[in-house]
Amino acid sequence: MLLPLLRQQVLDANFELVRRGLVLYTFGNASGISREDGLVVIKPSGVSYDELRLKHLVVTDLNGKIVEGTLKPSSDLPTHLILYKAFAKIGGVSHTHSEYATAWAQARKPIPCLGTTHADTFRGPIPVTEAMTDAEIASAYEENTGYAITRLFKNLDPNEIPAALVANHAPFAWGATPAESAQNAVILEYVAKLAYLASQIHPAASAAGKSLHEKHFLRKHGSSAYYGQPKDKK
Amino acid sequence: MLLPLLRQQVLDANFELVRRGLVLYTFGNASGISREDGLVVIKPSGVSYDELRLKHLVVTDLNGKIVEGTLKPSSDLPTHLILYKAFAKIGGVSHTHSEYATAWAQARKPIPCLGTTHADTFRGPIPVTEAMTDAEIASAYEENTGYAITRLFKNLDPNEIPAALVANHAPFAWGATPAESAQNAVILEYVAKLAYLASQIHPAASAAGKSLHEKHFLRKHGSSAYYGQPKDKK
Amino acid sequence: MLLPLLRQQVLDANFELVRRGLVLYTFGNASGISREDGLVVIKPSGVSYDELRLKHLVVTDLNGKIVEGTLKPSSDLPTHLILYKAFAKIGGVSHTHSEYATAWAQARKPIPCLGTTHADTFRGPIPVTEAMTDAEIASAYEENTGYAITRLFKNLDPNEIPAALVANHAPFAWGATPAESAQNAVILEYVAKLAYLASQIHPAASAAGKSLHEKHFLRKHGSSAYYGQPKDKK
Amino acid sequence: MLLPLLRQQVLDANFELVRRGLVLYTFGNASGISREDGLVVIKPSGVSYDELRLKHLVVTDLNGKIVEGTLKPSSDLPTHLILYKAFAKIGGVSHTHSEYATAWAQARKPIPCLGTTHADTFRGPIPVTEAMTDAEIASAYEENTGYAITRLFKNLDPNEIPAALVANHAPFAWGATPAESAQNAVILEYVAKLAYLASQIHPAASAAGKSLHEKHFLRKHGSSAYYGQPKDKK
Repeated sequence: MLLPLLRQQVLDANFELVRRGLVLYTFGNASGISREDGLVVIKPSGVSYDELRLKHLVVTDLNGKIVEGTLKPSSDLPTHLILYKAFAKIGGVSHTHSEYATAWAQARKPIPCLGTTHADTFRGPIPVTEAMTDAEIASAYEENTGYAITRLFKNLDPNEIPAALVANHAPFAWGATPAESAQNAVILEYVAKLAYLASQIHPAASAAGKSLHEKHFLRKHGSSAYYGQPKDKK
Repeated sequence: MLLPLLRQQVLDANFELVRRGLVLYTFGNASGISREDGLVVIKPSGVSYDELRLKHLVVTDLNGKIVEGTLKPSSDLPTHLILYKAFAKIGGVSHTHSEYATAWAQARKPIPCLGTTHADTFRGPIPVTEAMTDAEIASAYEENTGYAITRLFKNLDPNEIPAALVANHAPFAWGATPAESAQNAVILEYVAKLAYLASQIHPAASAAGKSLHEKHFLRKHGSSAYYGQPKDKK
Repeated sequence: MLLPLLRQQVLDANFELVRRGLVLYTFGNASGISREDGLVVIKPSGVSYDELRLKHLVVTDLNGKIVEGTLKPSSDLPTHLILYKAFAKIGGVSHTHSEYATAWAQARKPIPCLGTTHADTFRGPIPVTEAMTDAEIASAYEENTGYAITRLFKNLDPNEIPAALVANHAPFAWGATPAESAQNAVILEYVAKLAYLASQIHPAASAAGKSLHEKHFLRKHGSSAYYGQPKDKK
Repeated sequence: MLLPLLRQQVLDANFELVRRGLVLYTFGNASGISREDGLVVIKPSGVSYDELRLKHLVVTDLNGKIVEGTLKPSSDLPTHLILYKAFAKIGGVSHTHSEYATAWAQARKPIPCLGTTHADTFRGPIPVTEAMTDAEIASAYEENTGYAITRLFKNLDPNEIPAALVANHAPFAWGATPAESAQNAVILEYVAKLAYLASQIHPAASAAGKSLHEKHFLRKHGSSAYYGQPKDKK
């Protein structure tokens, strides 16, 4: 089997999504990339998580051509591939229909940064794509979903805001590794719920101030980070 | 025992409803039909899921006459029978009082299709019945509940929208098999929650566009479906 | 030990409240009465459910005098006793601070009957007490909590509406047995959540019609009941 | 190892936060103090709860100097230390980002006391800090978080309101022991949810009257307390 370590990481990331309650039935998928080999490992389409094993994962090249595996890859593979091509430093992508993040996507509202839980991981609001046009939907729909996301990051750093909402669809999250992409999907769902609750309590709740936001993001990221043990520094 | 395979499928469907948290105590029931034999297998009335075994299931004909079984069938049996008679292709029916779907039924609002999670399974909003009249309630109430549902599908295809809300009551879902009816009940509850949350975030949230809705429904259904592995195609 | 069977029933009812998630820490208690012996069995005050055993239960007479037991009874005992004295047919009382029912109590709003889930168990809205006066709070507070409840039932039948909300406090539920009181507390929490969600979806959601309400209540209660197996008829 | 008993108490308090669902990943920490020794035991920063063992806990003095331990202490340690210095009777501090309490913190609204569940533990609303200034954030941020909290208690007794919300951040709770601080964090989350739900049902829901509030607080606290068994009296 190709890429045994990456396979294990991708399997673990898929299971983390399930363990945290982000995935109903088969409504989600995680992948990982070996930049060196130009290969992506992804969950097969429509396979139950209960039955998912290492051997079921599908290996493709960056054009989506299957290199190893007997099953069809996730139908969202083209979206993952666009993200890997556009965001050079990411190593994993997780897609779920998790409840609160999907609700914001359905409401077509970005998730505002109302507090430090959000700021610890995301250096700004979670952006939401424009609605896709009929032409984008009719042909190469999944690639176009990827482009709808990458267009959001023309002036944003995907390494600092490792997630986006696809309008009327659901979230995608990513990270340096498959594990980190899954963890970011989990934290996204958590901050989506916090923002939901806070805005129900006080519809005019305002974003955390820029100083506070920056302080928390930089406690955990970059060269001055001081959260966690030394090996955790990103 | 008659129909051992169908019995097992019906038992599994009932347990799936419980496992997914859709049923409190005895507030739900699933059934299945053998079109060939003209027989229906259904949960007995008021029996705890903890104690429910294959032998407790009740087999009736399409008029509700008990053909095998010592227990009374679910009091909702007549509703199931009306659905089986009106919807010729369905093989299973699941009825629950699941929280979010029931809330929409109590609010007497159809569940709008705000995103692809909904569109993947349902080709339009989940309709809600008219309130039943005093006469419909006074006599043959459970049959009339079935007719209230089937009237909603005069211009809708029940195979494409496999669920409905009964006003001030709760949802019914169906499918090609008992398992699929239970799965549709679970997905219905999930999309009911997503629509609830999205409409709380943004009361004017608008339905997913028709192109997007059709795209997702047809990714999973019909001759051009490409989601899942080949054997999954419906 | 006195009343070994009733003790077991009371212990089971207490555990049912915990199992269904209605009780945080020690915030709840269930009791049962032997009408024949004029004795009540109740949970001791402030004892963790993890440690609760048969021998910890306290037996008192109808004046609250301890007849058996080395621990102090629940501080809410006087409320239970008032209910037992006023409602001659009840055999068990369950008190919790369950989330949704308590929220309605804190909002000082009765729980409207918006659907058949409610109607199946409660023949009308769940009433909420008046706020207690300073004098009622200052002296014999727990007895006065009981009287605030019983005053609600001057024109209501406690056997048909087996629960009430105490304003700014929480629910009490009762039933023919300790088990039934606990089950009614669980169903109350469920219908409280359904009514919460429905009224968030549609603030003007209107009550289920009287015919529908009566139909469902009488499917399960009284001489014409036809829900459940023959032995279940109440 | 220094302070083996306190270590165990702090470990247990950390685990209680996780067991009750208050902590996602590493987003929380509990500590305890030995007043006699002038030493604090706290969770290390960014260590997963799954892997957390007695030996990982960090012992510091009241200036934050590590006295025992090879890992870095929680980055929130300076906040804990300010609380220990300002609130002379407390023995434990718990910090979480629990969902409902954090939502109130993000909304920058105090949690109103709408009922007896709140009053049983907190003798008034849960206060929320002012937003921190840029200067307070830029330097000694975590200490300043502590001062933002202690300023709230100029005219409040921290032993009677053992929790506070930090604006756009999350709650801190405390108590006589590490266990009590964790329990107060759990109860805080519960009352935050109750207040959320009640204010959604009825935005103008008013606070429980002063008599009722005092009655419940004093049922459980002080020399006239009569809730629980004699040894529980606080």
